[in-house]
Amino acid sequence: MTANAKTAGGNVRTIDAGGYAVQIGRGLRHQFAAHVTMAAPAYRYAVISDAQVAPLYSDALVEALRAYGQTSLHVIPAGEAHKTRDTWARLTDGLLDAGCARDTTIVALGGGVVGDLAGFVAATYMRGVPVVQIPTTLLAMIDASLGGKTGVDTHAGKNLVGAFHAPSAVLVDVETLTTLPAEHLRAGLAEAIKHGVIADASYFAALDASLEDILAGDPARTLDAVARSVEIKLEVVRADEREHGRRKTLNFGHTIGHAIELASGFALLHGECVGIGMVLEARIAERLGVAGHGTAGAIEHILARAQLPLSRPPALDAEAVLAATRLDKKSRAGAVEYALPVRIGAMADADMTWAVRVDDAVVREVLA
Amino acid sequence: MTANAKTAGGNVRTIDAGGYAVQIGRGLRHQFAAHVTMAAPAYRYAVISDAQVAPLYSDALVEALRAYGQTSLHVIPAGEAHKTRDTWARLTDGLLDAGCARDTTIVALGGGVVGDLAGFVAATYMRGVPVVQIPTTLLAMIDASLGGKTGVDTHAGKNLVGAFHAPSAVLVDVETLTTLPAEHLRAGLAEAIKHGVIADASYFAALDASLEDILAGDPARTLDAVARSVEIKLEVVRADEREHGRRKTLNFGHTIGHAIELASGFALLHGECVGIGMVLEARIAERLGVAGHGTAGAIEHILARAQLPLSRPPALDAEAVLAATRLDKKSRAGAVEYALPVRIGAMADADMTWAVRVDDAVVREVLA
Repeated sequence: MTANAKTAGGNVRTIDAGGYAVQIGRGLRHQFAAHVTMAAPAYRYAVISDAQVAPLYSDALVEALRAYGQTSLHVIPAGEAHKTRDTWARLTDGLLDAGCARDTTIVALGGGVVGDLAGFVAATYMRGVPVVQIPTTLLAMIDASLGGKTGVDTHAGKNLVGAFHAPSAVLVDVETLTTLPAEHLRAGLAEAIKHGVIADASYFAALDASLEDILAGDPARTLDAVARSVEIKLEVVRADEREHGRRKTLNFGHTIGHAIELASGFALLHGECVGIGMVLEARIAERLGVAGHGTAGAIEHILARAQLPLSRPPALDAEAVLAATRLDKKSRAGAVEYALPVRIGAMADADMTWAVRVDDAVVREVLA
Repeated sequence: MTANAKTAGGNVRTIDAGGYAVQIGRGLRHQFAAHVTMAAPAYRYAVISDAQVAPLYSDALVEALRAYGQTSLHVIPAGEAHKTRDTWARLTDGLLDAGCARDTTIVALGGGVVGDLAGFVAATYMRGVPVVQIPTTLLAMIDASLGGKTGVDTHAGKNLVGAFHAPSAVLVDVETLTTLPAEHLRAGLAEAIKHGVIADASYFAALDASLEDILAGDPARTLDAVARSVEIKLEVVRADEREHGRRKTLNFGHTIGHAIELASGFALLHGECVGIGMVLEARIAERLGVAGHGTAGAIEHILARAQLPLSRPPALDAEAVLAATRLDKKSRAGAVEYALPVRIGAMADADMTWAVRVDDAVVREVLA
């Protein structure tokens, strides 16, 4: 394991992400400004948030940052439908209007949409300014805020436009999850479960045991899970920054998951789609003889306990989902590649590429 | 000197740019496809060009690339006015419609606008695909195609949105300059002259001696100048990839040059604006006692021999130009920084930052 977790003062864990720190704590929001200005000191700070999160947390953050430098707040509408080039262009113009030059640090305060958008603004603003990620959803805490992937959606698919741009810091206050709608907390758990499947069977079991506590808002159990998921994600990303190899394992559940998300017109949450995608891709793995029998069943079992959907909405046409998989970025030389499990805790490393080409016929069978 | 030039077969020079090669030759266009597919082998090739260059050179290139893989051609309108986020989005959608996945190499065939736009498409397409730059203007050959700067303009200024994305190769056929309008050849010479000012007094003198031959289309003299300019640019860029230090010297002439370009609504060519900017910034350097007397005069002399303008259009308001300098990306902590010469061939290294803060009052004096 390359990520290195320390317990500091009992309620903050610092994880070295290789070039930047991930701080995870209870009540850490009261120190956000101090952490931001240490990680990426700047002449100006631009806080980007959305209409759901800004009313809850932006006032205190903006006021605290103003003690260190000029600070502007840029609020976008909430929801994946706004993760577009248009919103990116409007945010960029807002920063230009606010007089932000290269010595500006962008602060992303919100869920995955805010983090991906603000990260892409930071990646492309005057060819790159620092960004500090402050994720306020479980999904963003353990996935979107880490590893430097930024981007927006187009009509043709999710995250088809973007850049790699590592954050200067990731700051997590697990207490912000108390304001997160329950279905978003459950959807975030799907990614945590994925981390168990791809890398750590004992974490998978621990999650199974603490699901109820986490869903009930137990901060200690939540902090444990967030920290372990962050460690796993960083370990995989650091082994493969540019996604040529092992990082592909993080895509487990996402090839079909993204396709369902797209084909459903974003009617389901990302985490819900990933959950369904994990079940179907685990079934593909079983059919191909890559995974042992029972792998898909174990995933179904834990998803059901987390009250997550196990199959796609009946109205969603199988061929539409299949067509959407072909738009996947992971498509190479015309064939769609899948990251597939061998068992809970271990992924298939076919030809050392961590990806398996799957014929449409097999995908059709599991979608049937 | 870090760049390393070799003479191969007498008519191609290979310059090691550190991670990629710059090939400069006469008639090299007949080997473009071979070079592209060696530097960045892919499943698909997407050639991006503009309405001026595509009719001249795209057919042969696309046909040659089709021997190696599926190849699509994407043509944009010519001119800086089209270097926008809208054009970038349309190009991106065109590649998505053509079915380009991550295993696509983008080929930029044209001048600086095409190179910057295609480079930014490549930097952001599925979070980054390779780009090979094939510059067909003198300016693009010796400046825009090198160093990995990509980007587009916004209403607030030039290149305010973009990314660093190094090319996989830069392929230069100096014979393509025979189809370049004369005023563009002269404008490109302004950047070559800048290379002499910032780094090499003997190159400045050699350019002065060969100006007429280059303007008359002498391929050997042109190849010599292109190769020396490429070496200087790469030497400076390699010393400072992320523009924190010496790379700033390449901005000589550009702070005021960009401001004139913007304030004039792009009525003048970029190189023409840089020429005027060099004269005015050299005068600033003289006024501040940074440069010896005669520095601005020497620059005026060579620009006049190249038939380039020496002062801004009289209709252009000095305050409008001054205001536009404040939008410069090089603005830091509210003050505008300038890269200033000490003499022909050497730049000021104030506080080891290679940049000098200049009061508006001094800029007003030289603009008066």
